[in-house]
Amino acid sequence: MKIKFFTTGGTIDKVYFDAKSEFAVGEPQVREVVENSNVGFEYEIESILRKDSLDITEQDRALVRQRVEAEPCSRIVVTHGTDTMIETAKALVGIPNKTIVLTGSMQPARFRVTDASFNIGAAIAAVQALPAGVYIAMNGRIFDPHKVRKNRAKNVFEATEFRAGDGMNSGRETE
Amino acid sequence: MKIKFFTTGGTIDKVYFDAKSEFAVGEPQVREVVENSNVGFEYEIESILRKDSLDITEQDRALVRQRVEAEPCSRIVVTHGTDTMIETAKALVGIPNKTIVLTGSMQPARFRVTDASFNIGAAIAAVQALPAGVYIAMNGRIFDPHKVRKNRAKNVFEATEFRAGDGMNSGRETE
Amino acid sequence: MKIKFFTTGGTIDKVYFDAKSEFAVGEPQVREVVENSNVGFEYEIESILRKDSLDITEQDRALVRQRVEAEPCSRIVVTHGTDTMIETAKALVGIPNKTIVLTGSMQPARFRVTDASFNIGAAIAAVQALPAGVYIAMNGRIFDPHKVRKNRAKNVFEATEFRAGDGMNSGRETE
Amino acid sequence: MKIKFFTTGGTIDKVYFDAKSEFAVGEPQVREVVENSNVGFEYEIESILRKDSLDITEQDRALVRQRVEAEPCSRIVVTHGTDTMIETAKALVGIPNKTIVLTGSMQPARFRVTDASFNIGAAIAAVQALPAGVYIAMNGRIFDPHKVRKNRAKNVFEATEFRAGDGMNSGRETE
Repeated sequence: MKIKFFTTGGTIDKVYFDAKSEFAVGEPQVREVVENSNVGFEYEIESILRKDSLDITEQDRALVRQRVEAEPCSRIVVTHGTDTMIETAKALVGIPNKTIVLTGSMQPARFRVTDASFNIGAAIAAVQALPAGVYIAMNGRIFDPHKVRKNRAKNVFEATEFRAGDGMNSGRETE
Repeated sequence: MKIKFFTTGGTIDKVYFDAKSEFAVGEPQVREVVENSNVGFEYEIESILRKDSLDITEQDRALVRQRVEAEPCSRIVVTHGTDTMIETAKALVGIPNKTIVLTGSMQPARFRVTDASFNIGAAIAAVQALPAGVYIAMNGRIFDPHKVRKNRAKNVFEATEFRAGDGMNSGRETE
Repeated sequence: MKIKFFTTGGTIDKVYFDAKSEFAVGEPQVREVVENSNVGFEYEIESILRKDSLDITEQDRALVRQRVEAEPCSRIVVTHGTDTMIETAKALVGIPNKTIVLTGSMQPARFRVTDASFNIGAAIAAVQALPAGVYIAMNGRIFDPHKVRKNRAKNVFEATEFRAGDGMNSGRETE
Repeated sequence: MKIKFFTTGGTIDKVYFDAKSEFAVGEPQVREVVENSNVGFEYEIESILRKDSLDITEQDRALVRQRVEAEPCSRIVVTHGTDTMIETAKALVGIPNKTIVLTGSMQPARFRVTDASFNIGAAIAAVQALPAGVYIAMNGRIFDPHKVRKNRAKNVFEATEFRAGDGMNSGRETE
């Protein structure tokens, strides 16, 4: 089994440069998470962008789509800032024969308390378990990009539709 | 969506008691992981055992099975020591209508560098995405309990069977 | 023994506000460091400013001096941003009968890898061990504010004068 | 300025070996603490023992004393388990012309929440600021080894004598 990680920046990759007294997007942090978790699969990590997700343009999204389409690996995890993760996910819909999962974090991976490892773990499980399609793995849930919003007040991704019995697993049922 | 967590001890829950200068199984650490990850689903956490997994007996396994069978929630994550996780997973096979995922960690959750958050994230995604059955989520992979072993030399869970094209996703294909 | 902590902001107190996708000075982090270290002395923590140290004005420094002068406790630790820590230290010179130690960190206290706990530990030892005067505790050293500079290229505080045998312990020898 | 670190084991150096499912004394952790704190002085780290401090014998203490006496560097930090740190400190009393500070931690340095960095920071400041003699730096305080005990119930080192005005700074006043 092999997973290809594409990174685009976002909070998950924010580091602190003291010389300039500023936080900015640094090296992809997914590498450290994956190494520290001693994963039992092959992987490659490739950086496409290093941006706050609010700065990602339609041109950037076209580039991400192009890279994902050209990628021979069929299991793809994209790390991304949370503010426009849903837009980028939508821009990836329709790529055939690939399971694509977007994730990121609300707190930088370098923090002592962060959701980065947890979210990457969830994305990796999702990209193996789910059929071809595009999904968002955030807050311990798996979402269909067309049925999710970021609730900024609560700082959490939530489903936009709820059904009796199971309001959540829309990603799976879409297929 | 709701997930029920059962805890049984193991490395993931090891804490350090300085007064006695010893490490031992403490409070379930899954609570802190889930709280720090700001999860967007309902959950309950219940401790069944607090043991090193080498000390878990057949009677203990019968107890775990009894609790899982009696549990109304259909998505269940069991945290467990890695040494006999496979045995306990096998003891849970055959419970109908429930997706049951076992996970744990190689390094205690309290460590600065640990696979605990990553593995719990993976288990949570797996328990949502997979059909009814019993699975092990370790090292970023999802295993069928009958097709996995713990490689002690490499300290990693690995599949016991490989097939052309995809040696891994046996859990899913078992269904 | 009692120590009074005054906080003014700086990198040490930088937290991440995801709702606004920005880092900014948050709650004083010295509280968590001191609590986690199970300290065996009385202390109080009081926030005077919450600023990047580049934004601290002469008026701000006058305020800090006023608070330190009015403080009945004779052992005082001031947490401060590193960029103008030396200027604030100089502004506190001449206050009688008080040992005043400034410290901060190059990496935010919330990071998994940070110099915050280490530096606060050093400042607390220095404020007990040294006679009345003003000192800077950074990079594991104790400096006289008139004989130190921040080397931005190396991101380290260093003595501006070296003497044979002991280039460092200017704080102690000043007395 | 140069500091020599001698390590003897203890909680601070406890790591987890999953293959054997046990915690044991591992590599000296002071190296990582010092590297992460970007210290501005020369240092050497040398391991003398790797023991729980309850297992340290009088012969071991004689060896530590021999090494400290033979060491040309005049500023020495010894990391040690907390249970018998006081005994080892007493065994080092009387070595001329050296400032010797013992420290350790109540929680292993590898833990996410630990007093290790804090205590090592304090020891490093103390070894610079204090005159020749033997001191214990624990819980943010500096103790004379003859006037301290480990309170096991509270898990804290505390002075055995208190005086009006300053019950604590016995290390300094001893001189």
